[in-house]
Amino acid sequence: MKDLRPALVQAQQGHLYRRRRVLDSPQQPRLVVEGRPLLSFCSNDYLGLAADPRVSKAFHRGLEHWGSGSGSAHLVSGHSRAHHALEEELADFTGRERALLFSSGYLANLAVVTSLCGRGDTVIQDKLDHASLIDAARLSGAGLKRYAHNDMAAARQRLAAARGEVLLAVDGVFSMDGDLAPLPELADLASQHGAWLMVDDAHGLGVLGAGGRGSLAHFGLDADHAPVLMGTLGKAFGTAGAFVAGSEALIETLIQKARSYIFTTALPAALAEATRASLEILRAEEWRRERLASLVARFRRGAAEMGFKLSASATPVQPLIAGRAQTALAWSRLLEEQGILVTAIRPPTVPKGSARLRITFSAAHEDRDLDQLLAALESLKP
Amino acid sequence: MKDLRPALVQAQQGHLYRRRRVLDSPQQPRLVVEGRPLLSFCSNDYLGLAADPRVSKAFHRGLEHWGSGSGSAHLVSGHSRAHHALEEELADFTGRERALLFSSGYLANLAVVTSLCGRGDTVIQDKLDHASLIDAARLSGAGLKRYAHNDMAAARQRLAAARGEVLLAVDGVFSMDGDLAPLPELADLASQHGAWLMVDDAHGLGVLGAGGRGSLAHFGLDADHAPVLMGTLGKAFGTAGAFVAGSEALIETLIQKARSYIFTTALPAALAEATRASLEILRAEEWRRERLASLVARFRRGAAEMGFKLSASATPVQPLIAGRAQTALAWSRLLEEQGILVTAIRPPTVPKGSARLRITFSAAHEDRDLDQLLAALESLKP
Repeated sequence: MKDLRPALVQAQQGHLYRRRRVLDSPQQPRLVVEGRPLLSFCSNDYLGLAADPRVSKAFHRGLEHWGSGSGSAHLVSGHSRAHHALEEELADFTGRERALLFSSGYLANLAVVTSLCGRGDTVIQDKLDHASLIDAARLSGAGLKRYAHNDMAAARQRLAAARGEVLLAVDGVFSMDGDLAPLPELADLASQHGAWLMVDDAHGLGVLGAGGRGSLAHFGLDADHAPVLMGTLGKAFGTAGAFVAGSEALIETLIQKARSYIFTTALPAALAEATRASLEILRAEEWRRERLASLVARFRRGAAEMGFKLSASATPVQPLIAGRAQTALAWSRLLEEQGILVTAIRPPTVPKGSARLRITFSAAHEDRDLDQLLAALESLKP
Repeated sequence: MKDLRPALVQAQQGHLYRRRRVLDSPQQPRLVVEGRPLLSFCSNDYLGLAADPRVSKAFHRGLEHWGSGSGSAHLVSGHSRAHHALEEELADFTGRERALLFSSGYLANLAVVTSLCGRGDTVIQDKLDHASLIDAARLSGAGLKRYAHNDMAAARQRLAAARGEVLLAVDGVFSMDGDLAPLPELADLASQHGAWLMVDDAHGLGVLGAGGRGSLAHFGLDADHAPVLMGTLGKAFGTAGAFVAGSEALIETLIQKARSYIFTTALPAALAEATRASLEILRAEEWRRERLASLVARFRRGAAEMGFKLSASATPVQPLIAGRAQTALAWSRLLEEQGILVTAIRPPTVPKGSARLRITFSAAHEDRDLDQLLAALESLKP
């Protein structure tokens, strides 16, 4: 058994050590962190639903009916009417035949990739895809071929050279950069090469497109273009868990084959009831997406005026690249001294030399919150 | 894109197709399934806490304080005082320095194995270990060496031949068989060969040992014998999620390195509050374990008298081996006609030729429930 401590010391010396902060308040922009009030610009609660009383009320009602636990996997006796109804509503929301719930996006991505691909097959991915998609390809045993971020010529080369069953898997919105994958081009490429296109829309669903239907809807694409859609429920939905949406045959295949589905206890039925309420709000309240768009536009104007180099993102994920890990940490500390919480994102979460502040917006942010952020950013300006 | 339907048809023809049942009631022995009352002997709610009003009450209080969602990963801003307190209480419960929460046992197992082992290392496992431990070893890139179920001579050979960092990972209680791993022998072997011993005690914690401290406590072993312990919260605890317990250095290593931890949204803080209540009940109410032991003993006497060949299990997991998949399905149907729900477990969940009914008991089962089960089993008796 090796001594684990030297690697921990090394991470500390490289400014790469990760420390958790303990929240004393609900997930809202105005947090209490270890007893101190801080204004947060780093959660993924994009629509401000994580502390919405209507979602909590549905959760309470769910607990009254279903109790706290589901007791077993969906395939044994853990699949409730609440889970079932949520799956039907998510299928309807995403315009697909079926949807299947998972305990996390990580597990959902493992399920899809390992069920569709194996030894002799090829999984093609953008280099900035989420860690769980990369791990899913590794676990599947298929060849993993990555292409430079959003480089369509490179993606085409990968597709041309692929063998076996081919899965082209991409983030709809890149989690640490906030930019979109060029989904129309990717859909064309996948179609030309007979490949599955899978979109992990963890950061797009609820935020982009008409009715919050995500990055595919943003581009006017549907299930014919991208037969596999993965969505998470712990971000814009404000609850927890994830789902895969697709054809009847796809979902039944996952139920039969996906080990991360078969061998996992179902999340509480009460949580599914909460998510049903959240989905209803998410679909109905267009103002939340408009609010986000206006916050993002105002932020970008203000930050650009200060001389910050902004990324191509038009989503609520707005990175400010610091470069070195210790610079990102220093920026995060400077903001915190001014009452603002933005966690520094460092390698290996992002490529070396691109440590950053990942600033995120929520429909629950008020104008004065953005004023406070912009004022605080003055202290970091180039 | 291959047509997924032929494989589905083939699974149907081989009696291997998995169908979900939809529950209309909370997870209790007396269920309503698709409108019909059924007495369940197949959940993992061993202590009967999944519908305990005290656990739900804590969940309600949690919702009032924390809202429905945690909004981001633990390392960003998703780690609440409730998660933190639960981690401390789980560390105390398991007699270890630290504990770390995960969204599922699958993710927790991935975290440990991929953080401790990589290319050039060796993971040694029992052939009947849970799917997630096997997948974790595959994902880690280490060599995976399995030994025949509970065969200590084979385990010793594997250890002698291992190279690099060596992790010996076993289920404390085997999920589909209910028997225990010979943990004292495994601890000796691990110690002799300088290997980490990791115990996945998903089906032992809460159920075995003084105070429900699990299969290690059952054998009088502690953290010195098995430095890595994984426990799940969706079974005896009656809620959802999982945790890893171990040394300060182990837990900090997981926080720094484990992708299934770093890149996953935290479960709701309210759920952590529910689990805290559940842990308190689990520790205090010894009668639940005594009740389970007496149900299991009475079941085994009754089933043995009817001529059923029982496994070596003394836990609430009691398999009745049917052999062929269609026999297990027929048995399950016969029981259901008599008002009893026991899902048939078929390959690939269990080895070919060992399809079975996996009968499980809960402290919430009454004597008359067991009477009903034994009467129904008459129709299957050899």
